[in-house]
Amino acid sequence: MRTGDFDAAWLPPAAFRAVGRRRTLLRAGDGPLVDTVHGEVADACGRFGGRVVRDGGEDAELVLEVTGGPAGAGLGDEGFALARRGGTTTVTASGGRGLLYGLFHVVRLGEDAFRGERPREEHRPALAVRMLDHWDNVAVHPVMGQVERGYAGGSLFWADGRARGDLGRVRAYGRLLAACGVNAVAVNNVNVHETEAHLLTDRIGEVAAIADALRPYGIRTHLSVTFAAPMVLGSLPTADPLDAAVRAWWRGATARVYEAIGDFGGYVVKADSEGRPGPFAYGRSHADGANALAAALEPYGGTVHWRTFVYDHHQDWRDRSTDRARAAYDHFTPLDGEFAPNAVLQVKHGPMDFQVREPVSPLIGAMPRTRLAVEVQATQEYTGQQRHVCWLGPMWSEVLRFRPEGGSGPRVGELARGGLVAVSNAGDDPFWTGHPLAQANLYTFGRLAWDPRADPGAVLDEWIRLTFTPERSADPVRLTDGLHAVLDGSWATYEKYTAPLGVGFMVQPGHHYGPSVDGYEYSPWGTYHFADRDGVGVDRSTATGTGYAGQYAGPWAEVYGSVETCPDELLLFFHHVPYGHVLHSGRTVIQHIYDTRFEGVAEVEEARRVWAGLADLVDPARHARVAERYEEQLRSAREWRDQVNSYFLRKSGVPDARGRTIH
Amino acid sequence: MRTGDFDAAWLPPAAFRAVGRRRTLLRAGDGPLVDTVHGEVADACGRFGGRVVRDGGEDAELVLEVTGGPAGAGLGDEGFALARRGGTTTVTASGGRGLLYGLFHVVRLGEDAFRGERPREEHRPALAVRMLDHWDNVAVHPVMGQVERGYAGGSLFWADGRARGDLGRVRAYGRLLAACGVNAVAVNNVNVHETEAHLLTDRIGEVAAIADALRPYGIRTHLSVTFAAPMVLGSLPTADPLDAAVRAWWRGATARVYEAIGDFGGYVVKADSEGRPGPFAYGRSHADGANALAAALEPYGGTVHWRTFVYDHHQDWRDRSTDRARAAYDHFTPLDGEFAPNAVLQVKHGPMDFQVREPVSPLIGAMPRTRLAVEVQATQEYTGQQRHVCWLGPMWSEVLRFRPEGGSGPRVGELARGGLVAVSNAGDDPFWTGHPLAQANLYTFGRLAWDPRADPGAVLDEWIRLTFTPERSADPVRLTDGLHAVLDGSWATYEKYTAPLGVGFMVQPGHHYGPSVDGYEYSPWGTYHFADRDGVGVDRSTATGTGYAGQYAGPWAEVYGSVETCPDELLLFFHHVPYGHVLHSGRTVIQHIYDTRFEGVAEVEEARRVWAGLADLVDPARHARVAERYEEQLRSAREWRDQVNSYFLRKSGVPDARGRTIH
Repeated sequence: MRTGDFDAAWLPPAAFRAVGRRRTLLRAGDGPLVDTVHGEVADACGRFGGRVVRDGGEDAELVLEVTGGPAGAGLGDEGFALARRGGTTTVTASGGRGLLYGLFHVVRLGEDAFRGERPREEHRPALAVRMLDHWDNVAVHPVMGQVERGYAGGSLFWADGRARGDLGRVRAYGRLLAACGVNAVAVNNVNVHETEAHLLTDRIGEVAAIADALRPYGIRTHLSVTFAAPMVLGSLPTADPLDAAVRAWWRGATARVYEAIGDFGGYVVKADSEGRPGPFAYGRSHADGANALAAALEPYGGTVHWRTFVYDHHQDWRDRSTDRARAAYDHFTPLDGEFAPNAVLQVKHGPMDFQVREPVSPLIGAMPRTRLAVEVQATQEYTGQQRHVCWLGPMWSEVLRFRPEGGSGPRVGELARGGLVAVSNAGDDPFWTGHPLAQANLYTFGRLAWDPRADPGAVLDEWIRLTFTPERSADPVRLTDGLHAVLDGSWATYEKYTAPLGVGFMVQPGHHYGPSVDGYEYSPWGTYHFADRDGVGVDRSTATGTGYAGQYAGPWAEVYGSVETCPDELLLFFHHVPYGHVLHSGRTVIQHIYDTRFEGVAEVEEARRVWAGLADLVDPARHARVAERYEEQLRSAREWRDQVNSYFLRKSGVPDARGRTIH
Repeated sequence: MRTGDFDAAWLPPAAFRAVGRRRTLLRAGDGPLVDTVHGEVADACGRFGGRVVRDGGEDAELVLEVTGGPAGAGLGDEGFALARRGGTTTVTASGGRGLLYGLFHVVRLGEDAFRGERPREEHRPALAVRMLDHWDNVAVHPVMGQVERGYAGGSLFWADGRARGDLGRVRAYGRLLAACGVNAVAVNNVNVHETEAHLLTDRIGEVAAIADALRPYGIRTHLSVTFAAPMVLGSLPTADPLDAAVRAWWRGATARVYEAIGDFGGYVVKADSEGRPGPFAYGRSHADGANALAAALEPYGGTVHWRTFVYDHHQDWRDRSTDRARAAYDHFTPLDGEFAPNAVLQVKHGPMDFQVREPVSPLIGAMPRTRLAVEVQATQEYTGQQRHVCWLGPMWSEVLRFRPEGGSGPRVGELARGGLVAVSNAGDDPFWTGHPLAQANLYTFGRLAWDPRADPGAVLDEWIRLTFTPERSADPVRLTDGLHAVLDGSWATYEKYTAPLGVGFMVQPGHHYGPSVDGYEYSPWGTYHFADRDGVGVDRSTATGTGYAGQYAGPWAEVYGSVETCPDELLLFFHHVPYGHVLHSGRTVIQHIYDTRFEGVAEVEEARRVWAGLADLVDPARHARVAERYEEQLRSAREWRDQVNSYFLRKSGVPDARGRTIH
């Protein structure tokens, strides 16, 4: 299933069989996206015996058409309509982008697209921006490596200190992204170091080359920039966003960016966060900061994505009143209404930092006059670093379906008017994502960004059908069932053997892989569990704790604020309880800790067994890579189980009710 | 007090005032060491008005003479005699080395050397080898930096990937070492990486250049080599120490080393330790390994220093029966009598790894037919990394005075027939050791190696007089008392605020700076404290524990093996006890933990105050550097206090009897 030096992922040639066998009419005029569509269909036909014509031809089985007429109206730039009548399947769009998405939709449907009659159905992306942020460095960072928190080799974009000369793989990446709906990519790390700062100015040509490679698949390129750019690059004495020279500098720099990249997407900024420069140094607000860049981008239709990941990372662990979870809300809600229309606040989905279980950030929904984007993390920093199988679809879906105001209020997926963003998990690894099954996260992200209400299980099924083409397999049912068995519950499994009940951060400091229960307990990072001999958890209630629970709207302040109503899985995020506290599940907290650790390991053992049983149905290289990673996952899961259990046994003194070995 | 770009340390010009004012007769023939003596005296005379003549001259106040006659007999190569009669002070030696040590002795005495009459007293070093091991890399290691566990800048020897072109500072280093009695230096890290392996062969010329710079001060140069050298450098298929080709390779390589460096000291080897190659790979013993190298060195009078730091660093924390403390004894005692006469086993002073408090290694004294060298660590890896004041003289003295067989048996200082070795704390920092007061450790090491029974307080006083020349100060008493106040008890102070009662290893993993009580608790390194809600400590008794205590001879197996007789300061090293256990001091373990943490911080506060009060008496640059480091020491000591106290309060639930704040 390889194409060249890398895995075909969810676009193996076999996935195009149904399209490639047909007679296709492309009635779409010209343009680069239409050319892409034509190329895709022509390639498939070359392989499977069909043919494609541009204009003419009465007997087409598949019609791909761009129309400005009533049929295209209302579909928008990216939408498409699909219908089948009288033996002809028709995809209609108002332009090349929609047509490309429509084509990939037909690919997903396979032979189903060519059966019976199909009334016209319209598809439009729910979110206009479906973006991947790459934390890629140009210069290899001595500690973080080339890709910060990357677990899939080096960068797809950068090698040997510059943009890759051969961007063929970047184009292939763009194609994979288009096939799942992603339409924006930021090509460098939000921690903008010295080398990378120059991409904005004297090295913009390299960014333009990457943009050229992504453009045929409808993907706009964005750039992470440093707030201090006017000083670092422009030799100004200040980066004060209200300073006229600073604003002029941004205007000039941005004009030159658009000269190089006419459809440039905009800037991504991490300011006043973990040591990055920002407007606080000048007594300015984040709205002042974001708006300065937004003003420079506005004439060209560009956007600034301004991250809300702002907190005190020099916190004193002795100080129990400061709560990092409160930070984004406290910093940003007072600024609602002050941000320019093309400034988007990019909010991490949870209040902390991509833990395996967090509540939804209370900032989402709390700034009705501001465009928010929600950021998730496809790269598995805290979820097994692509050595563990952890399919994040269910987690992201839970976030996107959450209703911040409760009742029938809007869902997160509707409130994210600025888009959905994921930190990418892809690199130059032959399997793109290190762990071949982590490709499912990348695919699922794109599809949920297109439709946040999609059933993640159905998306996973799509991914399986495209990637493994089970209908061509000797045992489609065993293959499909096996893949679902190892993936469907993998997030829940990972949660079971790692930090319990939402408390998070029991990882080894620095690299964040593997357990260290107290690893971040006495640190300056605001990441504590407060376990003592009597109990564990963080009191974030309004009555007796940090008051974080009170940041929630609707019923949630009350639900989370009370031990009685707080959901089990978030109990220790919101409350400090005795080990003997009885959960809604009927188990005590301490017994829950023990039980779920043992369950999690048993589930990994079972998944490994299931995977081993698929050896005859999966490409050998892919099977071997996954099998090898299961060995490490199992070793690591046992280490998690034993360290967490020993830690809490030593502390609580409560023996396991079932008498299992705790060291 | 600077000379050129670096601090004069304990050889400021003023220290030579008494000598430099005199009429000196040098009656010693020729030779490089005699030339060194002449140069030292001539320099001093140039500065202070005296003069020095070679031969002739009847009215000399100081006579420095080399004699083969009866006066020199029995002094050995390095000894000297001192006498004063009729207004003439005479230093007699059998050669240049002894004369140099005699001159530095006169320098130490200052004007006292020139008062009254002085009967002849003979001085000889107790240990023939007084060695510094430099853990310096040639190529800068991406994680460990240039000097592994170095806290004083880069290497004195290596820069830009090769031996320094200007070795003037190396010569100055040799001079400082000679003045405290050191006579051997290993110039590269015992972890021999790829670049450094080549120093043995094609890059031996660089080592020879360093040896040339050290030779005028009586210092022989040693080299750390990799056991795999015959494979890495010689392209042999094996490094089996009994293989004829391997032995021939070592012979040939060693012959070429001695062609380049006629007085080469020998090899230092870390084998089968923390991933280094060794004889175990070939089913050979460490005696086989060491003897292969010893055989190659024997014709030239060279020595192999073979480290006994061999243990399982992939231990399972779940396995309580394996005890790293046992490892060196278990590995090496069965081999007693099998090592060649010029193979020296280099034994760390304690059984673990340079913690602030360990018992003396039971290996010392347990191999009567083997030459042992004792290794201490001047570089403060676990004792504050030269950001904290921690004068180690009292600790080393305790080790050297310890009698492994009890009663009136021999002391460690007598059993270390292979010498005393320290891991150096010096680098290219202007103050040599980062923290200016850490110079006292380097000086004290040399003096204790010369005379292991010396009173460390007297040695410190010497160092103060040489370094600060208080007699030239505006307030000699305040200066001397102040320096003693901040240094004398600094080891005890450091012990008070860090890991309690000998349990060790509560440091942050990797860099080892600052507290992390559980940092090494669930690690593969064999470094555990086993704290639970009821108690803490490692049961190493014979009756119920790992049996480590039984490795001791004489009364010690019993003393250490029983909770009743075990000294308080080692209690948790040898026993797991309840928090309520009452120490010999009358305090409970938990109250001891709390009390000493508070005391330790108070002592740092007091030391900082005392130091501040010396501002008018100390060179401003030196004062500022120390003052700055006191700020960090105090911050860090408070962090230690609070983390350790919080950890044990949370675990034990026992409140502080004095009601102080524990977070």
